[in-house]
Amino acid sequence: MQSRDRNRAALFALAITFTAGIVLTLYRLASERHLDRISNFMVAVSKPSSISRCGTFRGSNEIWEESQLKYLRLPDDKFTIAMQTFRRPMELNNTLQALLRENIPSLSEVVVIWNDVETVPPSNFESPHGVTVRFRQSNENSLNQKLWPDPEYQTQAIFLSDDDIYYEPQDLEFAFQSWRKFGKRRMTGGFARCAVQEPGGRWKYSFCSTEQGHNMYNMILSGLAFVHISYLDYYSSHDAVLQSIRAYVDEHFNCEDVAMNYMVSLLTGEGPLLVKGRVPFVNLAPANGISTRPGHLEARSKCLNDFVDLFGCMPLMNETARVEPGVIIS
Amino acid sequence: MQSRDRNRAALFALAITFTAGIVLTLYRLASERHLDRISNFMVAVSKPSSISRCGTFRGSNEIWEESQLKYLRLPDDKFTIAMQTFRRPMELNNTLQALLRENIPSLSEVVVIWNDVETVPPSNFESPHGVTVRFRQSNENSLNQKLWPDPEYQTQAIFLSDDDIYYEPQDLEFAFQSWRKFGKRRMTGGFARCAVQEPGGRWKYSFCSTEQGHNMYNMILSGLAFVHISYLDYYSSHDAVLQSIRAYVDEHFNCEDVAMNYMVSLLTGEGPLLVKGRVPFVNLAPANGISTRPGHLEARSKCLNDFVDLFGCMPLMNETARVEPGVIIS
Repeated sequence: MQSRDRNRAALFALAITFTAGIVLTLYRLASERHLDRISNFMVAVSKPSSISRCGTFRGSNEIWEESQLKYLRLPDDKFTIAMQTFRRPMELNNTLQALLRENIPSLSEVVVIWNDVETVPPSNFESPHGVTVRFRQSNENSLNQKLWPDPEYQTQAIFLSDDDIYYEPQDLEFAFQSWRKFGKRRMTGGFARCAVQEPGGRWKYSFCSTEQGHNMYNMILSGLAFVHISYLDYYSSHDAVLQSIRAYVDEHFNCEDVAMNYMVSLLTGEGPLLVKGRVPFVNLAPANGISTRPGHLEARSKCLNDFVDLFGCMPLMNETARVEPGVIIS
Repeated sequence: MQSRDRNRAALFALAITFTAGIVLTLYRLASERHLDRISNFMVAVSKPSSISRCGTFRGSNEIWEESQLKYLRLPDDKFTIAMQTFRRPMELNNTLQALLRENIPSLSEVVVIWNDVETVPPSNFESPHGVTVRFRQSNENSLNQKLWPDPEYQTQAIFLSDDDIYYEPQDLEFAFQSWRKFGKRRMTGGFARCAVQEPGGRWKYSFCSTEQGHNMYNMILSGLAFVHISYLDYYSSHDAVLQSIRAYVDEHFNCEDVAMNYMVSLLTGEGPLLVKGRVPFVNLAPANGISTRPGHLEARSKCLNDFVDLFGCMPLMNETARVEPGVIIS
């Protein structure tokens, strides 16, 4: 009698396991087949995208999926300014004042990335419009600090910026809305640059050209660019290639923005997005900035080619379109 | 013994049913919760979007889901021109010649919607660049013919156009690429118009304004606009509201494009997208066209208000951004 009960219980358990397995498999197959038929025209819900193929770079779909899922709890209708500064209090104050004097409806917080490890940063404060300005001292003067996915960030959208360049407040809000509508998978901002291939095959850094047939761009610099926080997460991850990239950036003290453009286009297969404001952005362009030093263009060209080696391909995508505000009457 | 076997079989069946139910429910809950967390930042796969809420209009999510799924087998990297014409052979030939004289890489087919029911249309032909021009005679002279989802269309993208207006070939390709990248859920084209609310609450049709604070638009006319074929499908469906709309368009011989803008914004909750080409689009604007007749603006304003009644809300969304070609050097 006990043995018969045991048999019955075993049979029961077997039935349960077996059925669960079959039902689960059938359900998964059915829903995958259904999803496969649906294009990105419909955007109600999605699964994490996988990495687009380019040369020998494979990246880690595991890290990328994690980077995408990690920040979904954050709102996407507000943004954070991540502004890097190093011993230029006048430019910094000037830029902060310009950004805080008007209400920018979607601005949540300004984080000043204080790369001077020797001087204590000013205290945090709140602007008259209720925006918190938080000073975050870096533990080393590294350009990678600006691209670090600070766990205290409260928004999906991060506006990467420098202390000497800014969109006027209205235009910054417009650029953010453009990022939300058109540029979430792109570096979206005001400052375009080009990698152009020379006859011998080498890549050359340039300011781009508006000549017909060349009127395009393939990078948006991180002095003035919205980027989704998931890209900062992947950039700062333990992916082996990105580890080499970060070491390269620290060694050469340059090209973190070139690296970011490579990485975003590698992950998405898309180009960046140029957004022009109602008025030109302001560039305080100090005479001692990195980008005006002799040899700057050569150093940037070297990065372009070294990164092709490090990533194993040239991922930048040419984009011919830009976004501007306003209607045209016709 | 037989009774015990029956009991055992019944218990077994019960176990199977019970387990299947539980597993399926748990799996569905888990995957829905997972999907809910994922924003449209990730676009790899999606499920059909449901209709956004606006006033009393509910639409039919069933029809809309069907309209979305029906055309997924069609490529999204080519487009079809659907050009409406009525007894204007000179304008028609002029426009066809302009569009066919250069290679437009993504153009798949031109369908001329021949609304003259009394004259036999010309024969189909193939352009030197291999584009088929197909004449499709309407069975009635109705403006709804242009918005009919012809089962012979071979592409998801349909470029709605008239016989007297065109983008230059390069710009048409640019507008198509902009649709693909930024405007799949929008009426995307070259010709913007505005519905503006007057102090009394009535809506007024206008050419829009570039004055600060008003520099926006909420309609793109179908003389020059890309639209996804799924929207044509819903427009032509048995949804009761759309049936009244089509009857209205036939009765007034006007406003099919206004109706389309209402419907697309109702379905998506998004505005349209203005794309400016490298050069201005060509408008042959004959003196006897509908839009130059006296009373045109009043008739269009009447449509705006009548459609608010028919749809049960004002769904148009103001858009402040437009797309243009080329880089800006800074």
